[in-house]
Amino acid sequence: MVDIKRLSTTQPDFWESLEQLVGWESHPGAELEQRVAEVVEGVRTGGDKALLEYTRTFDGLDAGSVAELEVSRERIEAAAQEICPESRSALEHAATRIRAYATRQRIDSWEYEDEDGNLLGQQVTAIDRVGVYVPGGKAAYPSSVLMNAVPARVAGVEEIVMTVPAPNGELSSLVLAAAKIAGVDRIFTLGGAQAVAALAYGTQTVPSVDKIVGPGNAYVAEAKRRVYGVVGIDMIAGPSEVLIISDGQADPEWIAMDLFSQAEHDEHAQALLVCPDFVYLDQVQAAMERMLPELERSDIVRESLAKRGALICVRDLAEAQDVANRVAPEHLELSVAEPQRLVGGIRHAGAIFLGHHTAESLGDYCAGPNHTLPTSRTARFASPLGVYDFQKRSTTLFCSPEGAAKLAESAAVIAHGEGLGAHAKAAEFRKAGHGEGN
Amino acid sequence: MVDIKRLSTTQPDFWESLEQLVGWESHPGAELEQRVAEVVEGVRTGGDKALLEYTRTFDGLDAGSVAELEVSRERIEAAAQEICPESRSALEHAATRIRAYATRQRIDSWEYEDEDGNLLGQQVTAIDRVGVYVPGGKAAYPSSVLMNAVPARVAGVEEIVMTVPAPNGELSSLVLAAAKIAGVDRIFTLGGAQAVAALAYGTQTVPSVDKIVGPGNAYVAEAKRRVYGVVGIDMIAGPSEVLIISDGQADPEWIAMDLFSQAEHDEHAQALLVCPDFVYLDQVQAAMERMLPELERSDIVRESLAKRGALICVRDLAEAQDVANRVAPEHLELSVAEPQRLVGGIRHAGAIFLGHHTAESLGDYCAGPNHTLPTSRTARFASPLGVYDFQKRSTTLFCSPEGAAKLAESAAVIAHGEGLGAHAKAAEFRKAGHGEGN
Repeated sequence: MVDIKRLSTTQPDFWESLEQLVGWESHPGAELEQRVAEVVEGVRTGGDKALLEYTRTFDGLDAGSVAELEVSRERIEAAAQEICPESRSALEHAATRIRAYATRQRIDSWEYEDEDGNLLGQQVTAIDRVGVYVPGGKAAYPSSVLMNAVPARVAGVEEIVMTVPAPNGELSSLVLAAAKIAGVDRIFTLGGAQAVAALAYGTQTVPSVDKIVGPGNAYVAEAKRRVYGVVGIDMIAGPSEVLIISDGQADPEWIAMDLFSQAEHDEHAQALLVCPDFVYLDQVQAAMERMLPELERSDIVRESLAKRGALICVRDLAEAQDVANRVAPEHLELSVAEPQRLVGGIRHAGAIFLGHHTAESLGDYCAGPNHTLPTSRTARFASPLGVYDFQKRSTTLFCSPEGAAKLAESAAVIAHGEGLGAHAKAAEFRKAGHGEGN
Repeated sequence: MVDIKRLSTTQPDFWESLEQLVGWESHPGAELEQRVAEVVEGVRTGGDKALLEYTRTFDGLDAGSVAELEVSRERIEAAAQEICPESRSALEHAATRIRAYATRQRIDSWEYEDEDGNLLGQQVTAIDRVGVYVPGGKAAYPSSVLMNAVPARVAGVEEIVMTVPAPNGELSSLVLAAAKIAGVDRIFTLGGAQAVAALAYGTQTVPSVDKIVGPGNAYVAEAKRRVYGVVGIDMIAGPSEVLIISDGQADPEWIAMDLFSQAEHDEHAQALLVCPDFVYLDQVQAAMERMLPELERSDIVRESLAKRGALICVRDLAEAQDVANRVAPEHLELSVAEPQRLVGGIRHAGAIFLGHHTAESLGDYCAGPNHTLPTSRTARFASPLGVYDFQKRSTTLFCSPEGAAKLAESAAVIAHGEGLGAHAKAAEFRKAGHGEGN
């Protein structure tokens, strides 16, 4: 049988077991931390020269200058031509839908007037320049390019700079084509902590950006954590997860394959099925048993299911909801007949997929919502990547002379209470009697 | 004369000088990092016991249990009664206005249907439990309590837990009263890295929260950076800054006092005045000279102006705008006759104060917009604290059978391109022909 843990809410230690199962130690360890610190500092102080050296060492890519590592417009065009028509139209289909969804997210500036003639508002602007990190080598993720670059473009970001490692020169045409479709402006074949450092601090050739987004390995994640504050970052992502709440009505093979599609990411990925019908859990396990051998990545799937997967039996769907809220999963499938009855009670989840036909993998690629999602229970406080992440707000305040005089009274009282005399005086100056504006 | 740097955009090295002036090294240094790591780890593993020890050591506060460090409802009520009526009504006035502004920020859930009958949306929920860190001891900041807790309440946060250090038992009634007005649920007299760790991981007595907000010293900032990911954090704040663009028409004393009100925060605070009229810059400097001796915090003001202040002469207001966009200041005053003509060209600023009567200090306390703002040029990518920070979004997707079948085609193509076969199969299963939902 496929090796996968079984839990039941009737066990007295259920919640502790669940806690243990979903726990993820995100700290990278002192050694990795130290190595990343050195690389980041190296690029910050050494610029292009350091960047070339690290790229030679880590990616086996020997270039005479960083300029040579920039992918030419011609090469990008050629890649877009070279991929098969089916791929091109699938990527375009996905981009169109991601754009349509993102457009709904845009927030606008607003302003209102209070009863004293003061104007209060917020002015929304886009980030000037964004860096998109894309993993490279064996794993080519064109979908990741679309999911990161399209919302940036929708937000109005002026320039999008992408980095993608090309270990030993290997570079995916699908990734380049996706970059063209998404409207990426410049691409450098750089990777790892050195790429993140170059984007954060800039070098002679790589422009510094204001925010870095996109997934990467442990080195990339730690480098992003390190430069956070110098630039913005999207998030520090942990392993991918899905929690499926099932009413036991979908074809067990659908659910089994959905669990596989999560588990195939890597051996730390987490696939959880929660259902009140234990017979159905058996049926899904049997379906997994049948289908697993056919999978291209069956070894990875087997390992991640054994390590971090679980079939969880609950009393009813209400309890399934409790389990989901405790886990705060990155992906949540509500594979039930009436998903709208459950969704309102979901407090924490990155993306919610409603109904039997809504496979997570449809959302991963082309439905429209973003696939960059909060992992490792961070959906308790974090949100999917969106246009929001590429917009920023400034508060605006205009005080009428009467409004200022009125506000000055409260401001001065509080300022005195905080021992900040100049604050109090600056406020009081705006009351009638002291000097004049114009 | 008051010691303050003078710069002019006509200098050939102006932009480099500006860059140097506003640069701020946010890295706390390895030693502080190490000490904070120990305290955080100590509380994580040692719980209440460790927390008590650190509080004894660092705050000189000797308690028998952490429960004793929780401020009782009676004590909070007493504080609210004990402060003077002027203070109470000023705090209430501020809270009302902060609430009114915050209410405009709330984002709502939405959903739309595409042409294939798929439903796409986003579900907005509030964070469950938030921790508000409030500095204590000599510096009592009731305004900070309001600015952090009120938007959380407006967002719908269920429980707000506040920590405020009470070194040697010293605790501000204004802070407690502000907490009551803002609707804080629980207060612990805890501070420093140990308070942050307790909020992040929870102890036997202190509940773990989902996000920690609020300002603090270098230890608090580093602790927040450290627990980021376990919980959300608002930001890592650097020294406070103001940049004032002046047309030379306001009373020079108004502007001088606005610069003072920034400089009085601490010796690292930054106050910059940008004006095309160099005679006016002299007048402001003369006003500073006259008024500085009367200030309660004149020593701090003198030091911060000398270290980090500047009077900057520009060719015209358009160039002043360029300077502001380069600095991306936390606070930006547009002390000009027609501020609306400038504001649209401002790309990066935390809070913008328009017109001669709009002193920053009015916004600091009671106008309505938040005073927790991005510092150290982070306004390039970050925004003021707001209701947004206490809400989170889940994307939602419901696929109709027809919609799923259509999406499955593109999804399968891209999934194959990424080498993720189970993703492709999970999508394809939703096409007609394979099994059945219900």
